[in-house]
Amino acid sequence: MPELRRHYFLDEYCIIAAERKKRPSDFPATKAPGGETVCPFCPGNEKMTPPAVAVYTEQGVLFDGQESTCSWLLRVFPNVFAAMVPCPAPATADWIALPGRGHHEVIVDSPLHRENPADFSQERMEMLIHVYRDRYVHYREDSLVKYVSIFKNWGKEAGASLSHSHSQLITLPILPPLIKRELDAISRASLCPFCNIVAQEKESCRLIDENDNWILIAPFYSQAPYETMILPKRHFANLQEMHEDETKSLAALLKRALGSMQSLLNDPPYNYMIFQLPFGCYHLNIRIQPALSNIAGFERSTGIYINSFAPEKVAEELRQKLTAPKS
Amino acid sequence: MPELRRHYFLDEYCIIAAERKKRPSDFPATKAPGGETVCPFCPGNEKMTPPAVAVYTEQGVLFDGQESTCSWLLRVFPNVFAAMVPCPAPATADWIALPGRGHHEVIVDSPLHRENPADFSQERMEMLIHVYRDRYVHYREDSLVKYVSIFKNWGKEAGASLSHSHSQLITLPILPPLIKRELDAISRASLCPFCNIVAQEKESCRLIDENDNWILIAPFYSQAPYETMILPKRHFANLQEMHEDETKSLAALLKRALGSMQSLLNDPPYNYMIFQLPFGCYHLNIRIQPALSNIAGFERSTGIYINSFAPEKVAEELRQKLTAPKS
Repeated sequence: MPELRRHYFLDEYCIIAAERKKRPSDFPATKAPGGETVCPFCPGNEKMTPPAVAVYTEQGVLFDGQESTCSWLLRVFPNVFAAMVPCPAPATADWIALPGRGHHEVIVDSPLHRENPADFSQERMEMLIHVYRDRYVHYREDSLVKYVSIFKNWGKEAGASLSHSHSQLITLPILPPLIKRELDAISRASLCPFCNIVAQEKESCRLIDENDNWILIAPFYSQAPYETMILPKRHFANLQEMHEDETKSLAALLKRALGSMQSLLNDPPYNYMIFQLPFGCYHLNIRIQPALSNIAGFERSTGIYINSFAPEKVAEELRQKLTAPKS
Repeated sequence: MPELRRHYFLDEYCIIAAERKKRPSDFPATKAPGGETVCPFCPGNEKMTPPAVAVYTEQGVLFDGQESTCSWLLRVFPNVFAAMVPCPAPATADWIALPGRGHHEVIVDSPLHRENPADFSQERMEMLIHVYRDRYVHYREDSLVKYVSIFKNWGKEAGASLSHSHSQLITLPILPPLIKRELDAISRASLCPFCNIVAQEKESCRLIDENDNWILIAPFYSQAPYETMILPKRHFANLQEMHEDETKSLAALLKRALGSMQSLLNDPPYNYMIFQLPFGCYHLNIRIQPALSNIAGFERSTGIYINSFAPEKVAEELRQKLTAPKS
């Protein structure tokens, strides 16, 4: 049973999840010599994972227990090596430990083992965003769920243990410290700080791309090399409040963001993360961080990140890749 | 010129330091094929680095400009690829950017290219701690310096770019957000929260080792696999306030901490970091974090770290390595 542990005296948390040690990996360095690993995420190997909670097919969505041998486009199931699990457990006596009560889902993005998210079709990317929305809506109703984290780890260095493209969803019984600090700042501001980012960066040299509904920027405050951020021009808090035309244009811009990064940096490992909340004051945003540098002693001891790549230069390089023919 | 940039609306900072892209590395993956790299940290290659600001020899310490061809034990000089530099510069117009005003020093821990910090003699470790103290004292007098970060990155995955053992010192013109949050919590507490950690963990299953003046624990709140922490039993704020017997026993315990980690985990990459402040309310502490896991989307989007290794088990394993004969 995972445990959510509070820091001795700060409002910070870690999750102790010993079961996760056992999760398999199919990346070369850890693959058994000589043997080809069977991918549990590939069609035909569904029995290697828990039963799906949602299966997206050409004919529509199949929920809990309805999965059959039909071909699927995207498949959602509980993570066997979960950081958070549904059942409750008693708290540890010393300091503060909560049971790791929550949910941890895997979203297999594609039936194709080697498909790169940067190469997803417009239709697949739209469907993936629909899945993110559906799963978010499913969990926001749950009174024990205080936060829904949806993210993708692409590549071993970005924390993926299997190479078949997938996303993950983890629900938490608390608001994460990082989000709390954002909410505190929002509550003190007279205008939405994210609306302010949109207004300012839309006119800046850090704008990489935009369409009717969204902007793609290299943030002024960039922790990681080649970090980018996608923001909706309209103020809304979460995927449930997103209009259908916004879904389509988000899929298009996310494709362009991943494509330019793939092209410029030769398919780097990266994380993308959807930040959203059920509160109307929040402004949905998506952050993309390539995993190209190590977090070292300075970062760990100060919380300040040293980044050797100026966002202004990053924006210029990524813009060029958007207009250049694909190499 | 590096730039210290504030987050759009949070009290968080990053450092944009484009010059650091150019720093060399001698780790295998990046070494030029066929060519042996010349180590700029080795004796005889002093001309490859800026002149030393302090050189520790058998005969005593030589300061700025006194360096000659004498043999040295430890050598301190400014980092060529600095994250912070002494001269001021104008701030950027949009949002908040401060000039990266500060200092960034390299402390070469040993004249021996392949010496592992876990194998340092008691004398060398004591001298290294004296250097940390001397450099800290040097900078705490500077009114523009608000924080002194001293740390070691060991191994490529922990952020080291050169394999010859060295430590680093970076001064900042602000208090880092992480330290500010600690100070806030300390100011609200009736007793020192670190004294409380010492009192509680000394009697817990997370105690790994102790001597007259210090304890070594696997913290209840552990972000990283095999994370450990060294705390003085006496309340004091920084290295300047440390007694000579405490220096000796800290060197001994740090040696045991690094040695047990080296033995259990086969010389893992790691960071260790000295947390200290000039304010009497603070309680000096040293944190050691092996770099064995990737920071992934969940950590980046919540600030909550998933750790597959329970501190209670980690303490047990490290204790066994301390009593077992070295394998």
